[in-house]
Amino acid sequence: MAAWLVGLNTLKIQPFKLPPLGPHDVRVRMKAVGICGSDVHYLKTMRCADFVVKEPMVIGHECAGIIEEIGSEVKHLVPGDRVALEPGISCWRCDLCKEGRYNLCPEMKFFATPPVHGSLAHQVVHPADLCFKLPDNVSLEEGAMCEPLSVWVHTCRRANIGPETNVLVMGAGPIGLVTMMAARAFGAPRIVIVDDVPKEVEKVCKVMEARVDVSFDCAGFNKTMKTALSATRAGGKVCLVGMGHNEMTVPLTPAAAREVDVIGIFRYRNAWPLCFEFLRSGKIDLKPLITHRFGFSRKEVEEAFETSAGGGSAIKVMFNL
Amino acid sequence: MAAWLVGLNTLKIQPFKLPPLGPHDVRVRMKAVGICGSDVHYLKTMRCADFVVKEPMVIGHECAGIIEEIGSEVKHLVPGDRVALEPGISCWRCDLCKEGRYNLCPEMKFFATPPVHGSLAHQVVHPADLCFKLPDNVSLEEGAMCEPLSVWVHTCRRANIGPETNVLVMGAGPIGLVTMMAARAFGAPRIVIVDDVPKEVEKVCKVMEARVDVSFDCAGFNKTMKTALSATRAGGKVCLVGMGHNEMTVPLTPAAAREVDVIGIFRYRNAWPLCFEFLRSGKIDLKPLITHRFGFSRKEVEEAFETSAGGGSAIKVMFNL
Amino acid sequence: MAAWLVGLNTLKIQPFKLPPLGPHDVRVRMKAVGICGSDVHYLKTMRCADFVVKEPMVIGHECAGIIEEIGSEVKHLVPGDRVALEPGISCWRCDLCKEGRYNLCPEMKFFATPPVHGSLAHQVVHPADLCFKLPDNVSLEEGAMCEPLSVWVHTCRRANIGPETNVLVMGAGPIGLVTMMAARAFGAPRIVIVDDVPKEVEKVCKVMEARVDVSFDCAGFNKTMKTALSATRAGGKVCLVGMGHNEMTVPLTPAAAREVDVIGIFRYRNAWPLCFEFLRSGKIDLKPLITHRFGFSRKEVEEAFETSAGGGSAIKVMFNL
Amino acid sequence: MAAWLVGLNTLKIQPFKLPPLGPHDVRVRMKAVGICGSDVHYLKTMRCADFVVKEPMVIGHECAGIIEEIGSEVKHLVPGDRVALEPGISCWRCDLCKEGRYNLCPEMKFFATPPVHGSLAHQVVHPADLCFKLPDNVSLEEGAMCEPLSVWVHTCRRANIGPETNVLVMGAGPIGLVTMMAARAFGAPRIVIVDDVPKEVEKVCKVMEARVDVSFDCAGFNKTMKTALSATRAGGKVCLVGMGHNEMTVPLTPAAAREVDVIGIFRYRNAWPLCFEFLRSGKIDLKPLITHRFGFSRKEVEEAFETSAGGGSAIKVMFNL
Repeated sequence: MAAWLVGLNTLKIQPFKLPPLGPHDVRVRMKAVGICGSDVHYLKTMRCADFVVKEPMVIGHECAGIIEEIGSEVKHLVPGDRVALEPGISCWRCDLCKEGRYNLCPEMKFFATPPVHGSLAHQVVHPADLCFKLPDNVSLEEGAMCEPLSVWVHTCRRANIGPETNVLVMGAGPIGLVTMMAARAFGAPRIVIVDDVPKEVEKVCKVMEARVDVSFDCAGFNKTMKTALSATRAGGKVCLVGMGHNEMTVPLTPAAAREVDVIGIFRYRNAWPLCFEFLRSGKIDLKPLITHRFGFSRKEVEEAFETSAGGGSAIKVMFNL
Repeated sequence: MAAWLVGLNTLKIQPFKLPPLGPHDVRVRMKAVGICGSDVHYLKTMRCADFVVKEPMVIGHECAGIIEEIGSEVKHLVPGDRVALEPGISCWRCDLCKEGRYNLCPEMKFFATPPVHGSLAHQVVHPADLCFKLPDNVSLEEGAMCEPLSVWVHTCRRANIGPETNVLVMGAGPIGLVTMMAARAFGAPRIVIVDDVPKEVEKVCKVMEARVDVSFDCAGFNKTMKTALSATRAGGKVCLVGMGHNEMTVPLTPAAAREVDVIGIFRYRNAWPLCFEFLRSGKIDLKPLITHRFGFSRKEVEEAFETSAGGGSAIKVMFNL
Repeated sequence: MAAWLVGLNTLKIQPFKLPPLGPHDVRVRMKAVGICGSDVHYLKTMRCADFVVKEPMVIGHECAGIIEEIGSEVKHLVPGDRVALEPGISCWRCDLCKEGRYNLCPEMKFFATPPVHGSLAHQVVHPADLCFKLPDNVSLEEGAMCEPLSVWVHTCRRANIGPETNVLVMGAGPIGLVTMMAARAFGAPRIVIVDDVPKEVEKVCKVMEARVDVSFDCAGFNKTMKTALSATRAGGKVCLVGMGHNEMTVPLTPAAAREVDVIGIFRYRNAWPLCFEFLRSGKIDLKPLITHRFGFSRKEVEEAFETSAGGGSAIKVMFNL
Repeated sequence: MAAWLVGLNTLKIQPFKLPPLGPHDVRVRMKAVGICGSDVHYLKTMRCADFVVKEPMVIGHECAGIIEEIGSEVKHLVPGDRVALEPGISCWRCDLCKEGRYNLCPEMKFFATPPVHGSLAHQVVHPADLCFKLPDNVSLEEGAMCEPLSVWVHTCRRANIGPETNVLVMGAGPIGLVTMMAARAFGAPRIVIVDDVPKEVEKVCKVMEARVDVSFDCAGFNKTMKTALSATRAGGKVCLVGMGHNEMTVPLTPAAAREVDVIGIFRYRNAWPLCFEFLRSGKIDLKPLITHRFGFSRKEVEEAFETSAGGGSAIKVMFNL
């Protein structure tokens, strides 16, 4: 059984035929699946960015579960292992894959990105090398939350965050919160989060005693990006992560003339092991972010999506299957 | 004697009192000085970017000459040596200097950037380590042109241009031309230059058989930047060099979502030796770019600036002192 | 038919059963296969480094040919295409593959590295993404020589060779020659090749007017490595490529105290397209290195290996099938 | 008054004439000076590495104190400020300085490296940009210990230590201990320290469940370096820091063939601010390493050096002036 998106605002719990188990695949019984903003977006609009849902599609991609069966060539996993799943299967034949930037693979098959089915289902078949065995002290729910955390691991890596990087985070919502947690786990000594924008640059500089080394724009609006560009020191970096505006009107030229580079982010690569390390060691604690939990009946699924869409106190809504 | 900018559109040739020769300085008799767009800008408006000319200032910063006297501690130069001058004196005490990004030094003293005097003069005193001895087969005029070339050396280094980098240059004027020469000297195998923008992305992709690795926007207008962002492959770089618009309206978010990074440029660092290498070996030939030459009388200086400002066939206007 | 290594100094031409053609594979009719030092080593000793030939094995791995059949999913190649083959098939499941360092994959299946069969055969089946379509002006023989050239492309990339890198090559044999060609193609302005070692450091420094930025030790003996370490400037790199000695006795500590790093090399990655670029543009001309050509009868194969093993005037011995 | 090394095993407390205070200099009253192994080495042998003490020289270079007077151009410090001193004054005119690798400057003037005087004195004059104001919660003694800590900050930076780097430290003495502290502050999740060498590789791999990413050889003997090379994963790094042997006999070729790079270290650059950050935040606690304290009479100075030279329980011996 799986949660199918069958039309605008319409989800159904109906059977999903598993693909055959290849020699390098595993079959996983799902135990925890989180709801992502993009899941809600698909439900409400049948699309997300350039992707359009044209046929019924199983939804969900933040997930963890227990191995039930392994393919003939799988050596590092056994049935019973608790695993978190990286949702994207890249081609490993294109230049980007071979250069180690597989997150940019144009042939990527990604859970719940049409026409590929997602993982809000009782069982999925997935490549074994994309199933990462959880440390003993990391729960399945935390495992499911490694997917959104991976975005921030990748962002911090691209921005080269370390013990010398003073950081500004634009956007104090749940995303800004996780950004801050990730930056701190990478060692950033001083982090300022800003929400209300007017005149913020001066305040930031005052708090920091100078401009920052790296700014994350988690909102992606003209005014947040303008603040980020201005608050970053000569030779620093601005990571544009939020997608508020598509076309932006910002003072890009003065920033360029100070060698402030604008860095983009798309998903993640090789991030699960580091997520595990942060969770295992307690450098990051994701558990408080799980604000709501639901079972897997149709009614509960609908309610869960409403809760997630409604905003309010909901940060992460989680299914327990 | 030096060329003083004394007011709007007003230059005078009048005496300039040389500073004392320090132990690490040299005194140079100027032989070739080029006119830069910023020189013209100062003459026409008394300002450039955030810099305002408040007191009379000697103009000029692209220069080469012959050593006349050396300070007591100078060991690598002797009177008679032909040298090209790097015009900026950085502080070597700030973090950026110490990290090797001295071009971003906030205390930089740069020829003809107010209130620092320039080098369109019979003689200047300058730190010896910023005077680079010309190879035998490189002329003094070519030496003076190392200053603008250095910008492109720095740009190609920041963009990591090499034998695997396919390049797009937006802007087919003199600057685009030099960009192309520098990219080729760094080994770029395929370079496309585009001037007329509409529908260029498709043409670029067709010529290149794909999107490019690095785009240089030498114009800096919304439409050139938009083309540059769109024509660059996932994971590639766009260098914003031109300063047509201050505030830009461009589709930054879709570019960020393909990890296309926007890289800014400010002047250069450690670039003269590599310029010399390119000129010495013939990988770059700057001589055809010198379209006009003038002497150093007031009348000729005025005529030279008019020629440079007038555009037309003028690429580089050079003084022979 | 294929050339089988069946025992010490014993090659046989006998049938080779092709594996089935997978959806992402191609079947290639071999046209040009070069002999590598490792092939000779296997023939003379049945081993190379830690690899031991225990069962009869088809030999050869430097090869190019013509596509005869393509798998159902292959899109970038058609029968009749002339291709050069990258010989190693990595797993794309391990950390090193995913990070873009697939040359270090512990599961690598590499032509003629036991127990994997090689490519000195009339036909082979190989993954399509490891078959690179030759530019029109690059011959099949040159295509076969991309394999040894790729090692040097990888070496120059790891050593970060560019237009500012002065280079020392220890070892003036065929390998040193190709090193020099590759370094020049990467833009190295000054390259010194040294064969006779005593007192060479002083000579190198004299020729270069200083120590070099990067040294390649293509021999790998104590005395060549010692010279390479000493002739390299503070902050430079020594690439240890030759494998003359296993255990080396060298002044490593004084080199480390000048931050001279010792860089190792294993095979290559993502190198064929750049090899093609160098060959297509004429930056590298490998044709003069092909000193001997042979057909594919048993007698000719034996003679070819004797020629290659004999040294003398032989640089590259090539089969035309 | 200063501690002069006047001959083999002979120190004297005698007057030291301060140089004049330049506009960018400060005069510092010394409060805490640590004894380094090199100080002891100079005392016992009148030399260290290639440096020979030919004339009486003030000893000492690990120091912190209080500003007494500032030069006319100094803006970021005032009398009364507590500062730690970076002991090396580089030339800022050579290529290495300008590229940001000033630690390799061939013209470096370094406290107590002949013929430059050191800082075990009541007062010194030093460039203001090399005097770093201590955070309120960092003591002067800790400030003096930033000098040895800086070596490890530089080492961890060069080795690119971060939250994904598993580390092996060869040598469990005081140096190995500080290495471990620094690696942990840089985020290394797993660190193994090894002292007794035979068969250690297997044990390391067992503890780590695999080979490590980076090894630090803090001893610098053949057997420690051999272990470090073998215990490091393909594509990893070995930092050679210890200087036990000058000429080393090690299996360098097999390591190179796994792309295990050998990285050298010389002093440090731009390290004090990060040391302060680690001390301020408590990520590193150096205080337990100060095992002995002495005053500044001749008798105490002699006793202090004997204590430091004697080994035993002494880790860091500190003068309080």
